[in-house]
Amino acid sequence: MSNPIIGVIMGSDSDLPIMQQAIDILKEFELPFELDIVSAHRTPEKMMEYAKNAHLRGIKVIIAGAGGAAHLPGMVASISPLPVIGVPVKSRNSIDGWDSILSILQMPGGVPVATVALDGAKNAGLLAVQIIGSSEIEIRNKVIAYKEKMKATVMEKGNKLN
Amino acid sequence: MSNPIIGVIMGSDSDLPIMQQAIDILKEFELPFELDIVSAHRTPEKMMEYAKNAHLRGIKVIIAGAGGAAHLPGMVASISPLPVIGVPVKSRNSIDGWDSILSILQMPGGVPVATVALDGAKNAGLLAVQIIGSSEIEIRNKVIAYKEKMKATVMEKGNKLN
Amino acid sequence: MSNPIIGVIMGSDSDLPIMQQAIDILKEFELPFELDIVSAHRTPEKMMEYAKNAHLRGIKVIIAGAGGAAHLPGMVASISPLPVIGVPVKSRNSIDGWDSILSILQMPGGVPVATVALDGAKNAGLLAVQIIGSSEIEIRNKVIAYKEKMKATVMEKGNKLN
Amino acid sequence: MSNPIIGVIMGSDSDLPIMQQAIDILKEFELPFELDIVSAHRTPEKMMEYAKNAHLRGIKVIIAGAGGAAHLPGMVASISPLPVIGVPVKSRNSIDGWDSILSILQMPGGVPVATVALDGAKNAGLLAVQIIGSSEIEIRNKVIAYKEKMKATVMEKGNKLN
Amino acid sequence: MSNPIIGVIMGSDSDLPIMQQAIDILKEFELPFELDIVSAHRTPEKMMEYAKNAHLRGIKVIIAGAGGAAHLPGMVASISPLPVIGVPVKSRNSIDGWDSILSILQMPGGVPVATVALDGAKNAGLLAVQIIGSSEIEIRNKVIAYKEKMKATVMEKGNKLN
Amino acid sequence: MSNPIIGVIMGSDSDLPIMQQAIDILKEFELPFELDIVSAHRTPEKMMEYAKNAHLRGIKVIIAGAGGAAHLPGMVASISPLPVIGVPVKSRNSIDGWDSILSILQMPGGVPVATVALDGAKNAGLLAVQIIGSSEIEIRNKVIAYKEKMKATVMEKGNKLN
Amino acid sequence: MSNPIIGVIMGSDSDLPIMQQAIDILKEFELPFELDIVSAHRTPEKMMEYAKNAHLRGIKVIIAGAGGAAHLPGMVASISPLPVIGVPVKSRNSIDGWDSILSILQMPGGVPVATVALDGAKNAGLLAVQIIGSSEIEIRNKVIAYKEKMKATVMEKGNKLN
Amino acid sequence: MSNPIIGVIMGSDSDLPIMQQAIDILKEFELPFELDIVSAHRTPEKMMEYAKNAHLRGIKVIIAGAGGAAHLPGMVASISPLPVIGVPVKSRNSIDGWDSILSILQMPGGVPVATVALDGAKNAGLLAVQIIGSSEIEIRNKVIAYKEKMKATVMEKGNKLN
Repeated sequence: MSNPIIGVIMGSDSDLPIMQQAIDILKEFELPFELDIVSAHRTPEKMMEYAKNAHLRGIKVIIAGAGGAAHLPGMVASISPLPVIGVPVKSRNSIDGWDSILSILQMPGGVPVATVALDGAKNAGLLAVQIIGSSEIEIRNKVIAYKEKMKATVMEKGNKLN
Repeated sequence: MSNPIIGVIMGSDSDLPIMQQAIDILKEFELPFELDIVSAHRTPEKMMEYAKNAHLRGIKVIIAGAGGAAHLPGMVASISPLPVIGVPVKSRNSIDGWDSILSILQMPGGVPVATVALDGAKNAGLLAVQIIGSSEIEIRNKVIAYKEKMKATVMEKGNKLN
Repeated sequence: MSNPIIGVIMGSDSDLPIMQQAIDILKEFELPFELDIVSAHRTPEKMMEYAKNAHLRGIKVIIAGAGGAAHLPGMVASISPLPVIGVPVKSRNSIDGWDSILSILQMPGGVPVATVALDGAKNAGLLAVQIIGSSEIEIRNKVIAYKEKMKATVMEKGNKLN
Repeated sequence: MSNPIIGVIMGSDSDLPIMQQAIDILKEFELPFELDIVSAHRTPEKMMEYAKNAHLRGIKVIIAGAGGAAHLPGMVASISPLPVIGVPVKSRNSIDGWDSILSILQMPGGVPVATVALDGAKNAGLLAVQIIGSSEIEIRNKVIAYKEKMKATVMEKGNKLN
Repeated sequence: MSNPIIGVIMGSDSDLPIMQQAIDILKEFELPFELDIVSAHRTPEKMMEYAKNAHLRGIKVIIAGAGGAAHLPGMVASISPLPVIGVPVKSRNSIDGWDSILSILQMPGGVPVATVALDGAKNAGLLAVQIIGSSEIEIRNKVIAYKEKMKATVMEKGNKLN
Repeated sequence: MSNPIIGVIMGSDSDLPIMQQAIDILKEFELPFELDIVSAHRTPEKMMEYAKNAHLRGIKVIIAGAGGAAHLPGMVASISPLPVIGVPVKSRNSIDGWDSILSILQMPGGVPVATVALDGAKNAGLLAVQIIGSSEIEIRNKVIAYKEKMKATVMEKGNKLN
Repeated sequence: MSNPIIGVIMGSDSDLPIMQQAIDILKEFELPFELDIVSAHRTPEKMMEYAKNAHLRGIKVIIAGAGGAAHLPGMVASISPLPVIGVPVKSRNSIDGWDSILSILQMPGGVPVATVALDGAKNAGLLAVQIIGSSEIEIRNKVIAYKEKMKATVMEKGNKLN
Repeated sequence: MSNPIIGVIMGSDSDLPIMQQAIDILKEFELPFELDIVSAHRTPEKMMEYAKNAHLRGIKVIIAGAGGAAHLPGMVASISPLPVIGVPVKSRNSIDGWDSILSILQMPGGVPVATVALDGAKNAGLLAVQIIGSSEIEIRNKVIAYKEKMKATVMEKGNKLN
């Protein structure tokens, strides 16, 4: 893949089934991305390196998914100047997802993480697309088309129900 | 203010003391913004118009704050192709902020809202800056400088404590 | 069906199995109703139209079901002058239903939603019947008969247990 | 007051400051109402009598407020054929309001309570007005006017902020 | 069964599998009991009668189980002078049991309900036995023996593990 | 005080303002009681002794109040054959009372604690009275009179409101 | 096993599948341990004895697992001068684990319990190893090696994903 | 201070009033300690350095306090081989402390944090003392004396109450 502009990372390979939703969206919108496992707790140095260098090699948005005491999105956001999207994953040991959500969402002033819904990796992908689309009119138009398509699908379902 | 690129809206003027944190950040980073009260529940048509038109007049990111059953960020995100940052406000009638958080964060697939911490309008401002900085190197460098300054402040406090 | 007086809408066709409980009650009480999928987030214009026009074509009560960050009942209530009954649906991505409940229940002053229990579409149907019965004595008498029947069923079960 | 059509009851006189919001709305809309303290736990017989007779003397909607293990709305709804609106009050001993909300909202199938937000007595009043307006066009028009006035107030505040 | 001294009631026959644990304990301790379905919401008059008369026919303790917005234990306690033990049942529609617990536990001052753990009908039975044993030495001695037996079972398991 | 039959204990003297409510009730009903500070965590041997001996010196019911990780009621119940009433105290370090409630309420099968509402020491006192009244007709009649008095007070307040 | 230095206890044999994770870690690090069932509620005297004597026979760290109203870790900590690690077990009757967590974590000042994640017995084992390693350099080096191995595993998975 | 063996760090100087409790305990037990502000989010490199080097300069236990999305204890634990004690601080922006607790407690397998109660820095200090005492008999004896003193204080208060 040539010149990825979105970085998709996750704390564990067990997060992949959820994070795949983000990947699918990025493929659908044809945004080049890179994919890696970066554990804040098991590979802290790799995490530091990743966060320090991502923007230097052309990454524009980082999507980070993690569960439980989920420190990956916030730690990456503490180092990188890029917008970081956090995906709280309802992992096997999570307490109904509350730990994942709160440890990603409740970042202190100065270090934002753009948090999406529990297991909401699809929306993380779309948010990354919208951020790119914020400055690239072609991508934004694809977002508009995507919304139109969603609308058409729901309209059709409504018609069928009637 | 010439050509605002960030739209800051809130559901009620009672949200202003919190949302002021976002405004202060945008001023500090010298990003032009516009400010308005747009209530999803009391001015739904204005909300629709706002969301439909924001990108057409040059807005690149929308910051929306609301409390309780907080529908403003999600409804604006349902219409606008722009990235929408949601600020859950712990309003007077909110149940410790849980209602504000969940009704902003838990958006369905297809309609992301970039949610920040409860009352985290400062981080909403910074996230908007980072999104702009994602494609504008000058703004990104300001983010890097901002992080350096935060670090220096903490280092100094640590030294004093020692 | 001639001249529906109850409007039953839901945010997604995945809410239908729950919302069917309301439909069954309306059929049992022989109140004419209409049924549609109206997504606040995917078909916001349709939602606006629905809410603006429902009372003009004879609808007297609206039942709206949605899950997660459930904005449909509140948004319809923001526009329509009719009583709106909200059904929090424990959808697949909901956090044990808390997001559905809080984003429907915690409406700000001025825009009420009559909220029923999680997945409580049966009670939404009955509440609509009671609202109609509030001004139509024949329907109210059916409610009284319904209560008598419930009582008899429980009495019989108690007797069997003894 | 001649021929009340709305019954406003509360479990304790300590609920009056909150329930006053409902009273103010009913006065504003000029709907005749009656007011009483009816405790499910301290005056169960009075509660039974109230619920059995309200519709017989012309009451069309009951608004019931209570806090903690709040049984009043649900018990009245178990007896009366009228629509019952429940107001969860965050009383002094309530656990942040969660007990009040859940013991009013989570009614079993067959016995609905139209629950409004925590301390949301204003919305209880408005919901009662909307229920009356569901069959009386004059009242419904007052609701439409009320919504217009809310909108105008917010529009004006938005203009001032600009 | 001759002269029951414990009354075991439940809001629905679906609570029976849980409430059976209490029955088993009462049988084990050979305390005569009666069993009935008494729904606060579907048979309010029966509930009132039950609560008014239980002590008159020799009942000394009432065990009441219910789920969701569980009003049965509290309502019975509002009328009867007997100690009432409440069993929060995690019924099908309960929100993880929180509604059942809070609507039984959080009774207002003046009307206590002796609440046991979620689905803790076994302990409700034991508590009833202890209350009887509070004034009957023979029963109390059975409680002491019961505790010794529990201890022996755990000791044996510990030994096996070693 | 001659021959106490109720034991009132608490984990810390900071619990006294809450536990005083129970004491007031016991005085009102003229039931002799004893009062002590017994900390499960700071005086475990005293707690063991207390629990082992209470019934031997004539105590018939134990009321135990504690906050935070509140082990006192459950530990006393593990040793004593008497009915133990637990009062969850919302102590200074408690998390809104949830820790106090859950660590008292959720006892395992075999070791019941009769739990009352958060800070509900008044009801703990009344429950103790009811337990004594379960076998002593004179006390039970006092409970009936107490309920009549509560009713009269509420009736009077209702009349004043009218 | 010669001279155990870690004591692993649990409230019930049903906790064994979870507590086995701690045992596996202790075996992997070759730290001698002892294993027993010690129920605070069913064998309080055994629990007292265990806590009083553990350090006298060479135990240096105690790991205690329990669920629901989990008093074992805190009660052992109230008696023993050793560091006590508490494992909140999500037992069958636990309310999603919240009761287990809060009744272990929220210990009053003066009596600490080192609490790990829900069902986190593996980490309890590792924490015991780290505590031993705090004064024994050989064990600490094993911890460092363990961390290196974890890192290598994640790095490899990351490489495979790429 | 000569040769500190305990490291006390906190994410912000606003945590100092809480963390002072730990300092007071360490002074009381005369364990040499060092004190610093180390923010995971604002000074990530300093945090990495601290965690890498602490054990090399003689630190045996690390106490780390933080609030909100509290990543400091977990991140330090991911790097250091030492036992890390985490203090969840109920900071100004924390949601009643739940975020602080869950983001410290719910660490993934392999990286334990010994979590104490919300704002429980006193217990963090005592746990550090106990860990040192685990291998140093003199310190352990001080712990035993400390417990005796606590007991005496409570006994005295109990006597006064009698």
